[in-house]
Amino acid sequence: MKKIQRALISVSNKECLLPLLHILKKYKIEIISSGGTYKKIKNLKFKCTEISDYTGTNEILDGRVKTLHPKIYAGILYKRDNKSHYQDLIQNKFKNIDLVVVNFYPFEKILRDKINNKEIIENIDVGGPAMARAAAKNYNDVTVITSSSQYEEFINEIKKFNGKTSLNFRRKMSQIAFSETSHYDSIISNYFNKITSNLFPKRKIISGSLIERLRYGENPHQESAIYSKDGTINFKQLHGKKLSYNNYNDIFSAISISKSLKKNTGVVIVKHTNPCGVSTIKDTVECYKSALACDPISAFGGIVSCNFKINRKLALELNKFFFEVIIGDKFDNNAIKILKKRKNLRLIDASDYTSSEIFKFNSMNGSFLVQSDDKKVFTKKNFEIVSKKKPSISQLNDLLFAFNICRFVKSNAIVIASNKTTLGIGSGQPSRIDSCQIAIDKMKKFTKLKKELVAASDAFFPFVDGIERLVQSGVKAIIQPMGSIRDKEIIKFANDTNTVLLFSKTRHFKH
Amino acid sequence: MKKIQRALISVSNKECLLPLLHILKKYKIEIISSGGTYKKIKNLKFKCTEISDYTGTNEILDGRVKTLHPKIYAGILYKRDNKSHYQDLIQNKFKNIDLVVVNFYPFEKILRDKINNKEIIENIDVGGPAMARAAAKNYNDVTVITSSSQYEEFINEIKKFNGKTSLNFRRKMSQIAFSETSHYDSIISNYFNKITSNLFPKRKIISGSLIERLRYGENPHQESAIYSKDGTINFKQLHGKKLSYNNYNDIFSAISISKSLKKNTGVVIVKHTNPCGVSTIKDTVECYKSALACDPISAFGGIVSCNFKINRKLALELNKFFFEVIIGDKFDNNAIKILKKRKNLRLIDASDYTSSEIFKFNSMNGSFLVQSDDKKVFTKKNFEIVSKKKPSISQLNDLLFAFNICRFVKSNAIVIASNKTTLGIGSGQPSRIDSCQIAIDKMKKFTKLKKELVAASDAFFPFVDGIERLVQSGVKAIIQPMGSIRDKEIIKFANDTNTVLLFSKTRHFKH
Repeated sequence: MKKIQRALISVSNKECLLPLLHILKKYKIEIISSGGTYKKIKNLKFKCTEISDYTGTNEILDGRVKTLHPKIYAGILYKRDNKSHYQDLIQNKFKNIDLVVVNFYPFEKILRDKINNKEIIENIDVGGPAMARAAAKNYNDVTVITSSSQYEEFINEIKKFNGKTSLNFRRKMSQIAFSETSHYDSIISNYFNKITSNLFPKRKIISGSLIERLRYGENPHQESAIYSKDGTINFKQLHGKKLSYNNYNDIFSAISISKSLKKNTGVVIVKHTNPCGVSTIKDTVECYKSALACDPISAFGGIVSCNFKINRKLALELNKFFFEVIIGDKFDNNAIKILKKRKNLRLIDASDYTSSEIFKFNSMNGSFLVQSDDKKVFTKKNFEIVSKKKPSISQLNDLLFAFNICRFVKSNAIVIASNKTTLGIGSGQPSRIDSCQIAIDKMKKFTKLKKELVAASDAFFPFVDGIERLVQSGVKAIIQPMGSIRDKEIIKFANDTNTVLLFSKTRHFKH
Repeated sequence: MKKIQRALISVSNKECLLPLLHILKKYKIEIISSGGTYKKIKNLKFKCTEISDYTGTNEILDGRVKTLHPKIYAGILYKRDNKSHYQDLIQNKFKNIDLVVVNFYPFEKILRDKINNKEIIENIDVGGPAMARAAAKNYNDVTVITSSSQYEEFINEIKKFNGKTSLNFRRKMSQIAFSETSHYDSIISNYFNKITSNLFPKRKIISGSLIERLRYGENPHQESAIYSKDGTINFKQLHGKKLSYNNYNDIFSAISISKSLKKNTGVVIVKHTNPCGVSTIKDTVECYKSALACDPISAFGGIVSCNFKINRKLALELNKFFFEVIIGDKFDNNAIKILKKRKNLRLIDASDYTSSEIFKFNSMNGSFLVQSDDKKVFTKKNFEIVSKKKPSISQLNDLLFAFNICRFVKSNAIVIASNKTTLGIGSGQPSRIDSCQIAIDKMKKFTKLKKELVAASDAFFPFVDGIERLVQSGVKAIIQPMGSIRDKEIIKFANDTNTVLLFSKTRHFKH
């Protein structure tokens, strides 16, 4: 381990420099810097050499090429244990640079601030990443610091080793540096993909910042973490234990369903990522009770999501049942008070949640599938009535409601509904007839009153048997995509039984 | 649009340069180059200036800092429409560089070749990415080419525009350059993560190379593509139409299940990513027939995967049924001949497939969950017999078989098995009792003979009701993780009914 003699500092974020400068002074480490960083250091009353004085080259092109000089790169890149490298350095009167403190122009922030393309491009840092990469490559001899959040760790390290750093520390800092440069270029690359409308470029780079490590994954023997673009999540936990992998998975599912329903009138209960009850009845307590009534056995230990503010009255009702998570678009104070009494219950405010997903990806043994999100929402425009019998307005509304729920149910999906509430959901089956039977069984088990039933299927019925069973169970109107070679037979069956049949033409597979 | 006057070429891959050099000569474009590229160009008898002659600086440190010089970077980065930039260039006697052709040290290849850490680090390219990034940033004036696969497109462009390139072309090349640098650093970063055992770094970068665009995603209105690390897939399609998104999804699921079974003795049939029949009977035809018999209705249009070579006898049998995809560890010639008669059938050779997944990831509205793969395989060691009645050897084998299949069935999962064959699989249900009922219904529907039944559950039974129903249907032995507050009740029930009960202690949730 050699003492650090010389540092190059070039930072876009000029906060927190003071303790760093103090420790460099303490160990008599020479500082080279440029531009704004140089001014900042001088203002803080520390010694510092301007980079153009150091290299002997004028600063040109508004500072675009300040650091891109052999004297800088030789100083960083030369191998300290290589005699010929050392000779090269001496002959050229270059000096070793042992510490590089650099962070990049804030491209990510600039993108968020939506400045024009010219300004965005101007904020692509060329010198910073090049220096960071050179220092990171030569971690055997050089320490690279790429974020002010590392200053404290660096200060502790250099104190511990009396002006030096350990190889382990340098390797760790290199690992971070390369993940920073890769992340930085992934943002730039994705910006270019966006402006050139390239959804599936030759290289797809998905870059995430750690939100948190999770206790474990889907199962206790699996390790896990959650990432997002900027390391933040777009909902807020108000109460309860840390979220688990399965909580996150279910919460995202529940919020995406409830947010897809008409504003301020939707409750969904989710278990194992599948909805097991959905309602959009106007009265919020009735709405919740109806969603729960669809399958109260499955709902036990599940997640409930309301797309409206949860008030005291609803909180009292929710409190009667065991949920792991309750999600609302805010909670009023009385509701919070009531629900917080349960220590293990997690409360989530999803009022800031917006659907921002452009594509979904799914890993499979080293490969991954990418697809645009299934965002197609069904309205009265995009279907065809193929039966002689036409739907009533309430049937039509229920058919659209049921079909739009299919989008969130794992295939094969059958949703039986009435009065904007699901009464039976069949999911996750390898054959459609089984999903029909499950939906029917649930409906029969939990629905006491006789209702006007409709049903939706996420994909076409391959045979008549599925709709036959639904009709026998009281379903009067069915919506499904077309596409079976037996479509004609199915239409005939609908007409023979005076059933309303709609073809949606769009499928909603979800696996 | 200005004519390209000067090009800098520095390539690690020196193939295919000839047509590029010809076109540069045709348009009187000056070439600057260094090291191996310079030699190659001279050998091909083209004019070229060595970079150290161009910059006036000696090559030092074994070429580590060849191009990192203000004369190079000013030439690339100066804004052609900025007068002060132009003055800077003139005053320093620098010249414009309008084309940068660069590709990087083959870090990926080096990693594959498993050379030692020192050599790996030596192959981190510093100069190449810096030049590519500078040129890509200044795409308004400069063209950057980062792969020999772009030469042809570049040649066509420069011919079309008579020695110039269009802004659209330059922007597209920049987009590719940034995705290359990001990809390159993601590989380096992941290498560092590996050597520092950092599974969940602060930044997680997932980088993929396009295998192919797919016709559509899970549904026709979704766009889709598949990626892998190196743009190749680890199985081979021998026959049939292009694979769809859903094919890929099912194929990966089917292969991972069949490869998890004892070598040369496993058949699985998959539908919608869930297994709907699995057998490990030794005779291959019997094995297939047994897997099919578990749920022949669901199997229709499904995917079958055999973890052995498919011969003529089995091919004749497979040919009697409608599958979308048949997967084998090779096919013998007669088998291929028989199966190829079906035009729409896809045949996949999975003999080269190995499980290489370290972690799985799952996108959710801009965030993503990462977890290590659930690779835990159950053997006779890791369970506890908690009932008075002990399992027979064949029961024990069937219990382990069934529990290991649970790992691949979407939760809640119940697998009823006998003689190393599934007889009923309940999947994708929000309540365990429903999965029990589905598994029982399937078993009763398709199993004609009375068999010695066992059952496995992916997670604990919360109540006695689930195992009660299984036992009433003839199940004599059950395996499940422990963890319910009613475990004691459940053990009591097993003892009262003389049922074998095993606790696996490990859960196999899959959502």
